[in-house]
Amino acid sequence: MSESPGTPEPAEAPSPDVEAQAAQQVAHARRLDTDDPLAALRDRFTLDDVTYLDGNSLGALPRAVPGRIADVIAREWGELRIRSWTESGWWTAPERIGDKIAPLIGAAPGRVVVGDSTSVNVFKAVVGGIRMAGKGCTEILVDATTFPTDGYIARSAARMTGLAVRPVEPARISDEVTERTALALVNHVDYRTGALNDLPGITHALHSAGALAVWDLCHSAGALPVGLDAHHVDLAVGCTYKYLNGGPGSPAYLYIRESLQNRFESPLPGWNSHAEPFGMDPNYTPADGIVRGRVGTPDILSLLALEAALDVWEDVSIEDVRTKSLALTDFFLDCVALYAPPGRVRSVTPYDHRRRGSQVSLECSRAGGVMDGLIRRGVVGDFREPDVLRFGFTPLYTSFVDAERAARVLGEVLRELPEEQPEPAGDGG
Amino acid sequence: MSESPGTPEPAEAPSPDVEAQAAQQVAHARRLDTDDPLAALRDRFTLDDVTYLDGNSLGALPRAVPGRIADVIAREWGELRIRSWTESGWWTAPERIGDKIAPLIGAAPGRVVVGDSTSVNVFKAVVGGIRMAGKGCTEILVDATTFPTDGYIARSAARMTGLAVRPVEPARISDEVTERTALALVNHVDYRTGALNDLPGITHALHSAGALAVWDLCHSAGALPVGLDAHHVDLAVGCTYKYLNGGPGSPAYLYIRESLQNRFESPLPGWNSHAEPFGMDPNYTPADGIVRGRVGTPDILSLLALEAALDVWEDVSIEDVRTKSLALTDFFLDCVALYAPPGRVRSVTPYDHRRRGSQVSLECSRAGGVMDGLIRRGVVGDFREPDVLRFGFTPLYTSFVDAERAARVLGEVLRELPEEQPEPAGDGG
Repeated sequence: MSESPGTPEPAEAPSPDVEAQAAQQVAHARRLDTDDPLAALRDRFTLDDVTYLDGNSLGALPRAVPGRIADVIAREWGELRIRSWTESGWWTAPERIGDKIAPLIGAAPGRVVVGDSTSVNVFKAVVGGIRMAGKGCTEILVDATTFPTDGYIARSAARMTGLAVRPVEPARISDEVTERTALALVNHVDYRTGALNDLPGITHALHSAGALAVWDLCHSAGALPVGLDAHHVDLAVGCTYKYLNGGPGSPAYLYIRESLQNRFESPLPGWNSHAEPFGMDPNYTPADGIVRGRVGTPDILSLLALEAALDVWEDVSIEDVRTKSLALTDFFLDCVALYAPPGRVRSVTPYDHRRRGSQVSLECSRAGGVMDGLIRRGVVGDFREPDVLRFGFTPLYTSFVDAERAARVLGEVLRELPEEQPEPAGDGG
Repeated sequence: MSESPGTPEPAEAPSPDVEAQAAQQVAHARRLDTDDPLAALRDRFTLDDVTYLDGNSLGALPRAVPGRIADVIAREWGELRIRSWTESGWWTAPERIGDKIAPLIGAAPGRVVVGDSTSVNVFKAVVGGIRMAGKGCTEILVDATTFPTDGYIARSAARMTGLAVRPVEPARISDEVTERTALALVNHVDYRTGALNDLPGITHALHSAGALAVWDLCHSAGALPVGLDAHHVDLAVGCTYKYLNGGPGSPAYLYIRESLQNRFESPLPGWNSHAEPFGMDPNYTPADGIVRGRVGTPDILSLLALEAALDVWEDVSIEDVRTKSLALTDFFLDCVALYAPPGRVRSVTPYDHRRRGSQVSLECSRAGGVMDGLIRRGVVGDFREPDVLRFGFTPLYTSFVDAERAARVLGEVLRELPEEQPEPAGDGG
């Protein structure tokens, strides 16, 4: 695997040469899997013969979850019922599970709380951040390439606090931030291209201008080191159903830098964030610490499924995950260069390791049809409008054999579904 | 059982007379259970020999839930994975389950969407309501006896929209509403006293003044008819883990009156409420209809547990539930009058059926210790600061024998834990 494999090389239609190369690639993939120190982790998941490269959308099922949730339902809910709020630790689950996520994103205990959707946490983080910013601030910056919900919610937060929103490409934020900027909301990894944004550099530039840094970790947490504490990130949010394998729509999390926690004023001050939630006080007094990020009654079934899912990380170093992630995406890009018909796909994921997340996105005409063809042959990635094929590499359970197979099947589908000829020019020229 | 049983009668310490009366009450309870048309529904729940009167806090486990969730986890998530968003109907669950709750609260299909916590839905409803109100509005009214989270969230919503909050007792709202009132947020049943507020009358008075009516149904949905459409309620929210038995912290719901749906501007315009959620449009265009109440990715495990839990209502009329609820609370009050030491407890729940929800709240000194004693003897209610014992009656599974036993054990505990003597007057007199 190379640091910068370059543009995929043109591949001929299948020929004895390519078949020989394929045999070599399969053998190479097997050797890489044999040497992979994380290979055994795959057994912690329920997988079948599908090549599942959509863990960046919905992580696979960890084997520990079904048994744990059966017990939560039958015993904790069914037998103990209301007593489980204390006896089964339900009440403290949001912070306890936050502490379990914390090491994966470089946070000390007491800085992460789990609950609500990512969108709701973006609202808390952006409004909370605006309220901590200087009085003279008139705007927030929002990653111009963001997953849309962050932009929608940031606009709502800005509308409700009287600030303007300015969309800025992540690479331009350091130049565009001004003393009137309250904060910038940035995606750590671009959902569409898989590009990794410079969290340390952008955070530093924001701080130098007196602005706060709010990061969305949906596409990075569990795939690569984040280093929230080390880089002095102010606020962060993320989902748990991608690389953290928490299950469909599992609860999101909110990180608040320790020194800011007791200045955080939530726009959603639900009773769970009260200093004395069972005091039934008509006046709101926020709890100290990360509890302040809670809102309503925590969603226990989903939280405890997530908690069980996080057990797969117990003895795993996120640095090792990153090493394997880059090896997998390098190898996949090499295989695509070998198998794809010439000029048919173009990687929009950066080749530079410092700029790459844990997915490979290939621009390709007829991408929707191509992905349908892949799925029919047991290679599951996904498709994003208008023309991007996304392949997510989840180092805990994706093998090099998976990567090779996906690229080889992609080559077959592309040959069956050739590029559309350009439409003849119409009257408009 | 009487329409107005009056103040509980003084009961003597246990005597052969009381024991004979108790035997009569037990026999009476058995007859009432035999004649109860809903008695067989208890088999749809997992129950044991505990007398569980805390279904107004956490409903018991419906038998259908464990098997359904085992399948959701093992097959829908574990095998189909990402395909389940379409093939297993995950994507449309919030509206589909909303339609399942709708008949219980008197709503036509397409008016209820499930997701997020009650607190988050209160925020959506109050901000959304304020944005639909007349330009000259300067205040919102909030039920002065509300469960605290509604008040906290309403204050945040008002702060973020520049309005004032005025707490008003529900019975005073009709007099206090003015042409400057945008809306009133009112609890249908008081969480502490179990008093039922006059939803039709208050809603009508609000409308007459040009204000919107926003109801919190947490303590009424599933216990009594609500009639949202019939009474032209504008917005409503409720939880699903009490009388709807959805499980600990299961998702809440939002109701929006049909004619207001396309005027509803959510303060939480997440991607799930977009007209084309997969269009990845950086600009927000809200979906038509109740989908507009969605925010982020729906929490599937909890949603589908709730969906399975709602199956217990399939052939149940909410009017029959109401009839049994009143009979149960009447009978319990009669039994308390018989068994409790004289003057030791006082019902703060109204005796008037038109003003009673489905719980009985008894004021009592040393209430915390009394509830501990009850729980040790297998009668589970709960305790609310400073001095209220709450007993919830869930007509789908609470029997008259449960009610009699709870009152009898309460009498025993009260005799063991006599009222504290008043402190001797100190220097201050």
